[in-house]
Amino acid sequence: MKRVLFTPGPTQVPSEVLEAMARPLIHHRTDEYRQQFLEATRLLAEHLGTKQPVLTLSCSGSGAMEAAAVNLLSPGDEVIVVEGGKFGNRWGSIAEAYGVTVHKVSVAWGRVATIEEVESALTAHPKARVLFLTHSETSTGALFPAHELARVARARGVLTVVDAVTSFGVYDLRFDDSDLDGVVWGSQKGLMIPPGLAYVCYSPRAWAVAEKAKLPRFYWNLVKARGALEKGDTPFTPAINLVLGSHAAMKLMDKEGRLGVFARHQRNADATRHAVHTLGLPLFAEVPSNALTAIEVPAGVDGGAVVKTMEQRYGVKIAGGQDQLKGKIFRLGHIGYYDDGDILRLVGAFESALIDHGFSAEPGTAVRAAQQSLRGAKRPEPARVG
Amino acid sequence: MKRVLFTPGPTQVPSEVLEAMARPLIHHRTDEYRQQFLEATRLLAEHLGTKQPVLTLSCSGSGAMEAAAVNLLSPGDEVIVVEGGKFGNRWGSIAEAYGVTVHKVSVAWGRVATIEEVESALTAHPKARVLFLTHSETSTGALFPAHELARVARARGVLTVVDAVTSFGVYDLRFDDSDLDGVVWGSQKGLMIPPGLAYVCYSPRAWAVAEKAKLPRFYWNLVKARGALEKGDTPFTPAINLVLGSHAAMKLMDKEGRLGVFARHQRNADATRHAVHTLGLPLFAEVPSNALTAIEVPAGVDGGAVVKTMEQRYGVKIAGGQDQLKGKIFRLGHIGYYDDGDILRLVGAFESALIDHGFSAEPGTAVRAAQQSLRGAKRPEPARVG
Repeated sequence: MKRVLFTPGPTQVPSEVLEAMARPLIHHRTDEYRQQFLEATRLLAEHLGTKQPVLTLSCSGSGAMEAAAVNLLSPGDEVIVVEGGKFGNRWGSIAEAYGVTVHKVSVAWGRVATIEEVESALTAHPKARVLFLTHSETSTGALFPAHELARVARARGVLTVVDAVTSFGVYDLRFDDSDLDGVVWGSQKGLMIPPGLAYVCYSPRAWAVAEKAKLPRFYWNLVKARGALEKGDTPFTPAINLVLGSHAAMKLMDKEGRLGVFARHQRNADATRHAVHTLGLPLFAEVPSNALTAIEVPAGVDGGAVVKTMEQRYGVKIAGGQDQLKGKIFRLGHIGYYDDGDILRLVGAFESALIDHGFSAEPGTAVRAAQQSLRGAKRPEPARVG
Repeated sequence: MKRVLFTPGPTQVPSEVLEAMARPLIHHRTDEYRQQFLEATRLLAEHLGTKQPVLTLSCSGSGAMEAAAVNLLSPGDEVIVVEGGKFGNRWGSIAEAYGVTVHKVSVAWGRVATIEEVESALTAHPKARVLFLTHSETSTGALFPAHELARVARARGVLTVVDAVTSFGVYDLRFDDSDLDGVVWGSQKGLMIPPGLAYVCYSPRAWAVAEKAKLPRFYWNLVKARGALEKGDTPFTPAINLVLGSHAAMKLMDKEGRLGVFARHQRNADATRHAVHTLGLPLFAEVPSNALTAIEVPAGVDGGAVVKTMEQRYGVKIAGGQDQLKGKIFRLGHIGYYDDGDILRLVGAFESALIDHGFSAEPGTAVRAAQQSLRGAKRPEPARVG
């Protein structure tokens, strides 16, 4: 049976990317590889809005988070972690694994932290060196005001590192124009390739700290990675076929245009939310991210059964809640390679499965709402992917 | 132009593997994925000769080396590193990055360490907790007596961790019957898939140490990885399509049979060496590995030009020397998916390019020698890959 991914990562992979990865393997110390690697790197930097080096690591997003953290810290350091979900928590776990003192700004899952909350933590912990944030919290669907929080930290001389795993390719991060000092993302999300690569980009302020930071690191040594990149290289053998896939993916995104990519995500998120609203279901996140739509499971409906029916009967694989949210929310992913038709497939499967499991709605209500939203949406030039 | 990889990693990838990786992406938290992941894991363990868990990490071989090291060590520890090449050196660099005291048994590149040399280091450094070795040293083509050196270490209560990056899939490691305590390998070598995955397997002795080791680790936490594997899982999002590729590759290796795989590597190495010998060229390694053949560049021949001609005129990509061996050796890879015809292509291109660059030989000498060697070799049942 045909099964289509609508999880907030891994996400659908364009056939152009699958094809680029399926060719006979080439060696990474060749001009043929370097040309594609460097073009991918350049396009990634353009997309991020930076002239700083974008470093490609062969690992998951969590590996890149660890790399982004350990290169800025030394034994005895203190940090502030903003957490309101599984991935915010992860920053704390990483810092604690290295014996760094973590001060948490904890908000209820689904909420986002306010400027006041973060300012108050900065005031309470004047020795904190780095503020770690999640931009789009994949476990709750919430969008944190990363740029505003970074501005507050910057004003106090504190570096800000943001997990943009599900915001890269969705939001215009404008890295060089922002107060962000580090940004991390993975390959299996907005970049539209399979998991196995992750990225780090540092501001010049962060690089100055990285050159003196003292936490131990070998595979995660970003100063070495930056030096290697200057020669079109990586310190260790890269995941070659994924890098070639990233090149194919960035060419697609370049063709669509940055603003086109962001507008498409807005359109898809709007249509999904509109459909959910029409069903009378509340969104879980206080400020919803355009990467995914998290929806509270309605009373009397078995959330796990809906997820299973969507997959097995309607060929649509979404995600449920993780950890404390298990069984309590649905997470509908629309980050990456999704178009109007995909959204209708997603919303249609969701609505049908809900009805199958006793939810009361007139079949077609949600799909119609999504279509109306999509038809009314502005569509920037140039044309869509594909 | 057709270009074929004969580097000692990355190596050729079977079409069955390319196809498995080119299908639309599936999610890693599904039965479909778990079944393939767990079968790959089981076949990898069988191939290694172990009932211990084989842990899949999304990273390069160096990442797995770091993981294998940091989980066994605590601040203040001392270790012994046997080094006679670039990759032996890497064990030392990893340990030093974590502030561990490294005692080196250094042998000239191309040589292998003797039991006496390692015994003497163990005697001189009785506080050393772990012996780090390279089995097949990819930078020199030398095969270290890993099993014998491990026996010596074990007798003194010292753990042995071996880099089997270019020996897994080439030699029968019989892990559970050996005195080895840790083994590490990568995906882009004997396993015949692209780079991006690496593996660690520990003995029960090593696991007992890992549970108490104190070096910081997060992404490399193998105790967590072992716990996740028990549930068919990994602690972090895996490189899904590479894992599916590893499943396809291990099914091919299983069909060929362990002994068949090892015998084929012996046959290919013998034929390559026989051809080289016929040309009157000395092998670089004191004890040559069946993974690759390292050959001294003959006097009066421009080694770099030969490598280039092999690639550009004959479509065969080999490797030259690294670091101190740059321009001094050729490295002909025959680890992984290579058959008789591949060896003739490799040897033919090598011989022709040498002659093109002024080396004196009767064209066909080396190819004929390789063919004779292959024709005379024993071929175990069951039949070959494919």
